[in-house]
Amino acid sequence: MIKTPYLLFLGDAPDSLSAKVAQGIKDWRPDNAVGQFRMEGCKADLGLQDMTLAEAREAGAETLVIGVANRGGKISAAWKEVLIEALNMGFDIASGLHNLLRNEADLVAAAKASGTTLHDVRVPSVEYPIADGKKRSGKRVLAVGTDCSVGKMYTALALDEAMREKGMKSTFRATGQTGILITGEGVPLDAVIADFMAGSVEYLTPDNDDDHWDIIEGQGSLFHVSYSGVTMALIHGGQPDALILCHEPTRTHMRGLPEYSLPSMEAVRDVALTLAQVANPDCKVVGISVNTYHMSEAEADAYLAEVEERLGLPAVDPFRQGAARLADALAAL
Amino acid sequence: MIKTPYLLFLGDAPDSLSAKVAQGIKDWRPDNAVGQFRMEGCKADLGLQDMTLAEAREAGAETLVIGVANRGGKISAAWKEVLIEALNMGFDIASGLHNLLRNEADLVAAAKASGTTLHDVRVPSVEYPIADGKKRSGKRVLAVGTDCSVGKMYTALALDEAMREKGMKSTFRATGQTGILITGEGVPLDAVIADFMAGSVEYLTPDNDDDHWDIIEGQGSLFHVSYSGVTMALIHGGQPDALILCHEPTRTHMRGLPEYSLPSMEAVRDVALTLAQVANPDCKVVGISVNTYHMSEAEADAYLAEVEERLGLPAVDPFRQGAARLADALAAL
Repeated sequence: MIKTPYLLFLGDAPDSLSAKVAQGIKDWRPDNAVGQFRMEGCKADLGLQDMTLAEAREAGAETLVIGVANRGGKISAAWKEVLIEALNMGFDIASGLHNLLRNEADLVAAAKASGTTLHDVRVPSVEYPIADGKKRSGKRVLAVGTDCSVGKMYTALALDEAMREKGMKSTFRATGQTGILITGEGVPLDAVIADFMAGSVEYLTPDNDDDHWDIIEGQGSLFHVSYSGVTMALIHGGQPDALILCHEPTRTHMRGLPEYSLPSMEAVRDVALTLAQVANPDCKVVGISVNTYHMSEAEADAYLAEVEERLGLPAVDPFRQGAARLADALAAL
Repeated sequence: MIKTPYLLFLGDAPDSLSAKVAQGIKDWRPDNAVGQFRMEGCKADLGLQDMTLAEAREAGAETLVIGVANRGGKISAAWKEVLIEALNMGFDIASGLHNLLRNEADLVAAAKASGTTLHDVRVPSVEYPIADGKKRSGKRVLAVGTDCSVGKMYTALALDEAMREKGMKSTFRATGQTGILITGEGVPLDAVIADFMAGSVEYLTPDNDDDHWDIIEGQGSLFHVSYSGVTMALIHGGQPDALILCHEPTRTHMRGLPEYSLPSMEAVRDVALTLAQVANPDCKVVGISVNTYHMSEAEADAYLAEVEERLGLPAVDPFRQGAARLADALAAL
């Protein structure tokens, strides 16, 4: 568990796209961020207050979160200077970078000297159990996609927000680096050892109040041959009561797999539901989330209406419309 | 890759069941074993020649394979004495034990001093790639089960034997500890990091002659909630041309999951085939392997006949009848 609130480190970000972790925190957990820290030449700006390390500490920041991708796969000397100063001032540091903080001797030494913590959220910090499949109390909903990167995390976060607005009890359960940094906790599922994947999802979504919903961030797709095993573990470890189908209609092939075309939503619905009902016979597909970013508003509206009619389920783009109708579908279960 | 031939170390095995790794090597790769090494009190006997370490070295043994489960989860002092002597005499040691050879300082020191190798086959020794899903040449068959431990490895090894007898080109591809020790190589799939599971299976079953069959050892089951992600990665990483359904008809619940009943063979056939056809649209289910160990011969015959009729596929118990009819089904593809 990462201590909040954060100071968001944008470094020398070359553009705003490279700061999407920080943007996610600002969008979804604005209370978690006291401000932003930008170095010379930084081209990203979240519109948060620019702060020095000292100002941020004074404002209560506990953790410096690296909210930006680094260039060239290494932590630069310029970054290092800031990070070491932050550790010396009592900040923990959290990072989802591929190159781990714990492999940098100077950061490790500074953290040790100051009694602070380095969080590499890309690596599991828990020994997860093997899944036992026992029925847990509380309810769970999982986003399943026709492909990777179709908006499953966005859908889950939007759904969490919509449910809270309706006074429902919900918790977003992160299963990837960005989600973990946004909420401060979760399971980096793609880095878990095969035998413990489903167990880590059980660990992430324990017994809860009968009217509480865990909103589990999806990963991969049952139809994406590189990552389908991860998706499968989410479906069985999560034992969801409800599935939401996620789709991006303009994609011409599976992400990273030019030889593979996308499955239909019907195909995903059928096989995901069959497998989900192994762990939870009452599981239902309750709604559809479409990422219409590459469509005009008129195209998007027409597409959503067509999908809604064809599959007989509420279909929304949570970015354009919010996820209130998906929350209603869960409330009606 | 583990150097052959082996000396099979049976230690102080309390019974023959505890020596099932050694038994597997003797049954399936008899040429790989020059003899057995038994300590005082050993209750297992493979019927191989008992040898001292020196005799085995003289007979050409390159690797001492720990063919027995240890008691209490530690490597005893009595074992240590033998293992260190073996390393000093130039043996490599291979083990599938949970407690790793590499974590024993005295073994590591002896291996270093003698220039020998410690193989912990439970742990991957390769950095596997992420699966790219590209079509590979050659053919592949995968055993998929209604449950764990229903005879998938046995089926694959029997099929390999039957295909060789018919003059077909085949290679058994091990995906678990026992299979790796039997053949000397493979992927310990349950210990691979989630993101690389399917890639490790691609790595295990590379391009090959058009008329060559990789016979991929199955793991878990799509219907076993603890391990289904591993099964899924085999189905997509293996891009099989053919599936063989494996079943144990007397089991009352899924292994280790008392609340879960077994799926029908039809249910496994349908969902496994749907998912396999994502990676290989031409994939077919070609036969059924039933473990009838707990049935009388008459019961087994009646059951196999009924299954064969019901599913319209050849159904055999490879332990009772060999796998020739499954090999014929592959040859006919």
